[in-house]
Amino acid sequence: MKFCVNTDKKNSWYIGVNNYDPKMINKLETLMFQGNGYMGMRAVSEERQLNERRNMFVSGTFDAFPSEVTELPNLPDILNMEIQIDDMPLSLSTGRVENYQKSLNLKNGELTRNFDWIINDKRVNFKYSRFVSMKDKHLFVSKVEITSDKDINVKVQSGIDGQQSNSETQHMMEGDKRLYDGKFIQMKSETQQSHIKFVFNVRHKLYVDEVLMGNKPYMKMGRRQIFGNYDVDMKANQKFTLVKYANVYTSMDEHHNADKMAESSVDDLKFASLSNYKELLQKSARVWNQNIWKKSFVQIESDDVMPQVSINFARYQLAANTPHDPRKNIGAKGITGEGYKGHSFWDTETFMLPYYTFTMPEVARNLLTYRYLGLEGAHKKALANNYKGAQFPWEAAHPADGETTPLWGSADIVTGKPMKIWSGFIEQHITSDIVIALMDYMNATGDHDFAEKMGFEIILDAAKFWSSRLEYNQAQDIYEINDVIGPDEYKEHVNNNAYTNFTARWCIQKAIKVYNLIKEDNPALYVDLNDKLNLKKTYGDWIKQVNKIYVPQPNADGVIAEDDQYLSKKIIDVSKFKVNDQISNVFKYYNLSQINDMQITKQADVLLLIYLFEDMFTDKVKMSNWNYYEPKTTHDSSLSLSIHSILASDLGLADEAYKLYEMSCETDLGVHVGKAAQGLHMAACGGVWNMTVQGFGGMRIDNGRLKIEPHLPDNWKSLKYQIQWQGSTVKVSVDNENLVVEAVGKGVEFINHGQTYQVAANSNVAVETSVEEFV
Amino acid sequence: MKFCVNTDKKNSWYIGVNNYDPKMINKLETLMFQGNGYMGMRAVSEERQLNERRNMFVSGTFDAFPSEVTELPNLPDILNMEIQIDDMPLSLSTGRVENYQKSLNLKNGELTRNFDWIINDKRVNFKYSRFVSMKDKHLFVSKVEITSDKDINVKVQSGIDGQQSNSETQHMMEGDKRLYDGKFIQMKSETQQSHIKFVFNVRHKLYVDEVLMGNKPYMKMGRRQIFGNYDVDMKANQKFTLVKYANVYTSMDEHHNADKMAESSVDDLKFASLSNYKELLQKSARVWNQNIWKKSFVQIESDDVMPQVSINFARYQLAANTPHDPRKNIGAKGITGEGYKGHSFWDTETFMLPYYTFTMPEVARNLLTYRYLGLEGAHKKALANNYKGAQFPWEAAHPADGETTPLWGSADIVTGKPMKIWSGFIEQHITSDIVIALMDYMNATGDHDFAEKMGFEIILDAAKFWSSRLEYNQAQDIYEINDVIGPDEYKEHVNNNAYTNFTARWCIQKAIKVYNLIKEDNPALYVDLNDKLNLKKTYGDWIKQVNKIYVPQPNADGVIAEDDQYLSKKIIDVSKFKVNDQISNVFKYYNLSQINDMQITKQADVLLLIYLFEDMFTDKVKMSNWNYYEPKTTHDSSLSLSIHSILASDLGLADEAYKLYEMSCETDLGVHVGKAAQGLHMAACGGVWNMTVQGFGGMRIDNGRLKIEPHLPDNWKSLKYQIQWQGSTVKVSVDNENLVVEAVGKGVEFINHGQTYQVAANSNVAVETSVEEFV
Repeated sequence: MKFCVNTDKKNSWYIGVNNYDPKMINKLETLMFQGNGYMGMRAVSEERQLNERRNMFVSGTFDAFPSEVTELPNLPDILNMEIQIDDMPLSLSTGRVENYQKSLNLKNGELTRNFDWIINDKRVNFKYSRFVSMKDKHLFVSKVEITSDKDINVKVQSGIDGQQSNSETQHMMEGDKRLYDGKFIQMKSETQQSHIKFVFNVRHKLYVDEVLMGNKPYMKMGRRQIFGNYDVDMKANQKFTLVKYANVYTSMDEHHNADKMAESSVDDLKFASLSNYKELLQKSARVWNQNIWKKSFVQIESDDVMPQVSINFARYQLAANTPHDPRKNIGAKGITGEGYKGHSFWDTETFMLPYYTFTMPEVARNLLTYRYLGLEGAHKKALANNYKGAQFPWEAAHPADGETTPLWGSADIVTGKPMKIWSGFIEQHITSDIVIALMDYMNATGDHDFAEKMGFEIILDAAKFWSSRLEYNQAQDIYEINDVIGPDEYKEHVNNNAYTNFTARWCIQKAIKVYNLIKEDNPALYVDLNDKLNLKKTYGDWIKQVNKIYVPQPNADGVIAEDDQYLSKKIIDVSKFKVNDQISNVFKYYNLSQINDMQITKQADVLLLIYLFEDMFTDKVKMSNWNYYEPKTTHDSSLSLSIHSILASDLGLADEAYKLYEMSCETDLGVHVGKAAQGLHMAACGGVWNMTVQGFGGMRIDNGRLKIEPHLPDNWKSLKYQIQWQGSTVKVSVDNENLVVEAVGKGVEFINHGQTYQVAANSNVAVETSVEEFV
Repeated sequence: MKFCVNTDKKNSWYIGVNNYDPKMINKLETLMFQGNGYMGMRAVSEERQLNERRNMFVSGTFDAFPSEVTELPNLPDILNMEIQIDDMPLSLSTGRVENYQKSLNLKNGELTRNFDWIINDKRVNFKYSRFVSMKDKHLFVSKVEITSDKDINVKVQSGIDGQQSNSETQHMMEGDKRLYDGKFIQMKSETQQSHIKFVFNVRHKLYVDEVLMGNKPYMKMGRRQIFGNYDVDMKANQKFTLVKYANVYTSMDEHHNADKMAESSVDDLKFASLSNYKELLQKSARVWNQNIWKKSFVQIESDDVMPQVSINFARYQLAANTPHDPRKNIGAKGITGEGYKGHSFWDTETFMLPYYTFTMPEVARNLLTYRYLGLEGAHKKALANNYKGAQFPWEAAHPADGETTPLWGSADIVTGKPMKIWSGFIEQHITSDIVIALMDYMNATGDHDFAEKMGFEIILDAAKFWSSRLEYNQAQDIYEINDVIGPDEYKEHVNNNAYTNFTARWCIQKAIKVYNLIKEDNPALYVDLNDKLNLKKTYGDWIKQVNKIYVPQPNADGVIAEDDQYLSKKIIDVSKFKVNDQISNVFKYYNLSQINDMQITKQADVLLLIYLFEDMFTDKVKMSNWNYYEPKTTHDSSLSLSIHSILASDLGLADEAYKLYEMSCETDLGVHVGKAAQGLHMAACGGVWNMTVQGFGGMRIDNGRLKIEPHLPDNWKSLKYQIQWQGSTVKVSVDNENLVVEAVGKGVEFINHGQTYQVAANSNVAVETSVEEFV
């Protein structure tokens, strides 16, 4: 693996750089992002820099600028500090910079930046550190320490800078700015269309040689700006320390009185600032430890530290970007950048939900509740397209919004006509993806409460959509689904996409089961849902349709056609487009309409299908399709590599599995400069856990039962991980000799190569892996 | 005089700098602003820089962001060029920069920037040049020439960059982007509230060693961005030249079909780009010469070039910032920056209009027509305040908008309560200022057409407002005006401000004359205006009020009280606040409420009154008030210095007059870094002409007659200037011996020290000045 950041053999929680490279700033801003799911900020420097992307977001606070689709507004900045030494503004592009180091501690979320700045024969040492609290979701704390070998004058301007925007689209209306008690700087603002109110507070504490000073800030206000200014003369070797406490609240916050927000948020900051930086960091670190690292424990023993760094980084970013509020979901880029406008896609269900379902089921439940709240929007979308039931949006923002995919993309620069973005109209598989993730959640957790309150309804409503979506082909007496985009987005307007048709039928099959189950077991619920969804009539449709839904079958060579047209298209050599250091490399050679006519795949729909429904395909069919589609796949998506790696593990293709694993780990951490500049690939983070635990760790759901069939990579000595299964904690340990499965809490049952093992409560079972491997 | 830019003894049209100083960038962006009255752009560098203020405006295209008052939107940028040499992005903060020179040619409006950039042992020479055409008001042309002593690769990205805003307030909705004919890059946008449509076009021509190349741009589009990219390998000493042609049109443009704007603007650019850079520059320079330099001719013979540079700079900026469209006016900062939101104030009438009235009366007429169109807004404002007639807005944008002064300023940072901006409510003298300027215009031009169509109506409507504004004091049987702000803005809520009361009475006196005049001479107009303004009733009010309007009279010492309270306030030593290198210096010592209780003046109302109505005050009263108020005036406004200088000239205080003149010339060109950062002081530009021609040149209107009584400064050998008077061109030449007045066209009459001189058509008259001085 090759990363753009340094790692540390002895500390798998470290990522850092030792030189300041202006070309890397956007990428590093993303990689060293700090957040707690509620809010987050890119790792920009405290002082402004050319070409920086200074973003801070609060999850779920969407707003629409006139003529644009809704997006997550970039908020007033609270991390700014502009420093002058002897009236020279600190800038890494002036003077000489030595001993530069910037790094992120993944374990406690602390970002540090240290360097010596040499000007006028003075060596001035700067140590910056900061974190977004995991304990108090509204709190951000930051610190700068300055020392010099000579006397210096230090001036600092720091406060709240609302001169921020989403690439110059401005969502925020300017509100009042004021100072409370001569100490607490406050600014209010409000989104211009969704009218979400925000309040930001900042206070500073200034120390000289660790002694708290009484300096009052000299205030400066500008448009959308309010700053405190400090001016201190320092002797040689004295230490100047400024600690900045800041918090953010919104009118969307739960249990919060929006009218009193201005006052109560100041009280909260008063209370927080009674503690010093270190105390608050420790409180936050304890929550990271308890709520994240313990629950999602994964340990890889290997001479190479990068696999452990990768899984730590993935879990860090998942934690930093996942809101704990059912009205909010995880954006495709989390809250790490403006990319995809903060919208959520199937990325959540297909790539990130397994991690939460198996480690923090309460988070998974929140994320699925978001879809339940989204039924309103899904009904809107179905109606708008002349369908029934719940057609979930391709891109989602506020749950009730429905579809938020931009309708039109850039104009075709030659014809001048704007190009329609088809995903919002015809990339319809997301409705199935949600049901698949939801079934996994219910199987893994046995959460009957969720099933009855939300899960069953989503399944039935989704199947109602699919039923209305089917097209009857009288000539062949079958139901088809034509004119869609499958997960392979290279192919627009295809008919009978294997993935879409298969999962649509599966949804209807599930709905039939659910219908019968609740009718039998829960008549009250049945009556309720029948009222809501006109179930009896809908059930009739399902029964009529289900066995006639056309699903492509393996051909003579065992290959399942991706769609009606795919196999008849031209075959070309795809290998030169499989280079991992270019985005959309293939588009340098062909345009979309040419690509549409070739057997070239962005991500292989059929292989995804096989991964998700592994028990429904024979090994021979799996291998045939692997051999057919993998060479034709460019992996020009951050989504496919992890799926292919897991499938390769399943098929015993250890080298391929590991190669794909490494490529996937490099999605963001790798050396490609442009790739993470606009934000992180959250699905790839989910994918790292999936490859590690589901692929190499072999942990899967097999017909509702727990299956553990590890495929330990050659250069790993052991792999340990922990999951939640039906309310129990299951600890799994794999090395070259043994698979040990321990149950904490109730006992559990698992399958391993066809055999069922019972693990008693608070006990463990060992299975010889070395033998298994040669069977 | 001390300027922040270099001047050239031999070329009074040159301002430039020879070193690149990051602290100066905003100030130089303003000083080297380029415009043609229709559009204009700050002198930012082609490549982005930290802390730059990249502004381009089209006059009068106001828009309001939600919760904010209307302002001039910062538009998509058309001057950008990002260059890479051997893949190193050009930045003046990397590598070594030598032979740096940036300068503006005031004569033809061309901005040039040259330097050597030394990277990797290669010396790369850059020559940038650009201009906003004075011939085609929609056209901007720019050029970069690159040569190197070694082989280099040159990459250029250039196009239209809509990622601009007003300090992050975004007015523009993103529109279509496209390429026409593989060459013409186009972007549309539209203001979000006022729905003014814009179209921007760019094309490039690329030359190697002067040979036109056929390179097609590789297009890149981003949010609000569309760029062409060029990539050329150059041999040592070969010359790379890229010429950028750009134009801008709006749906406000006259004689323009907004529906066809997209196509016709491309046709216009096609046509323009048939000519090369030099040809277009020459065409533009010819218009500068004919329309500006010849008409406003002023020549100062002196060993010091700075006075000539100052008057050239002032006239350059006035020309670059004055729209030729009666729906638009000159902003207090023109279109040179975001300061004052592009709004127009009394600055236009009191400080800039004399220049236009006497050199380009057609422009003056446009500017006064703007106020006529503004009657609708002025009625709105009067109604809102329970007055009658036309109360002109303190700050004006679209004529019909009425008042656009922000209602609330920043919050008081201690109490947290927002502070009311009182000027929009009680700084009411602007209604008089408009009438004063209008009378001067009518006297100087004899424009009867204007008088009958607009001028008389404005006077009557303004007087109708003043009549409704007067407050009857029964005890003393007088009419008062209480609770106002005069031009001295240090004093809020004063009663019977001398300037306000005097000019209000004067307005009513003028209106009475106008009433009688039109009733007698123009019954049709009388009937019309009587219908509109209910004149008969209003006239009755005027007659009842006019002789009872209280106007402060000179006291025993000859001093006229600024207002009822002023003379009883505490007297302090103001000298330490008179330093010209600080803005609002006095506020570092006192707050507004303290200043309100002291005899300290921002600009002296009474002296302004004496300047405007010189024939109404005796020399003794003038001198008494000068001696009383000048020492109490901080000149913490760009407006007062020129008035005081002229008055000092009148009073024979030659040294003081010249000192104030120099300080006024330094308003923008001086060394104070912050002063012009947000835009130029347009009134100070008008002031430079006023001091030169009205002060030293002694050209004035005396009871409707032309008076010429020069006061040539000691270090000036001669002063020549040209004005328009009643349709004739009058050329005035003054040296230490003679004043020569020449009439081109009809003959003219002028007064000099009580004596009337007749100048026959196309002839001249000489008056001995040396004798006069000793009389």
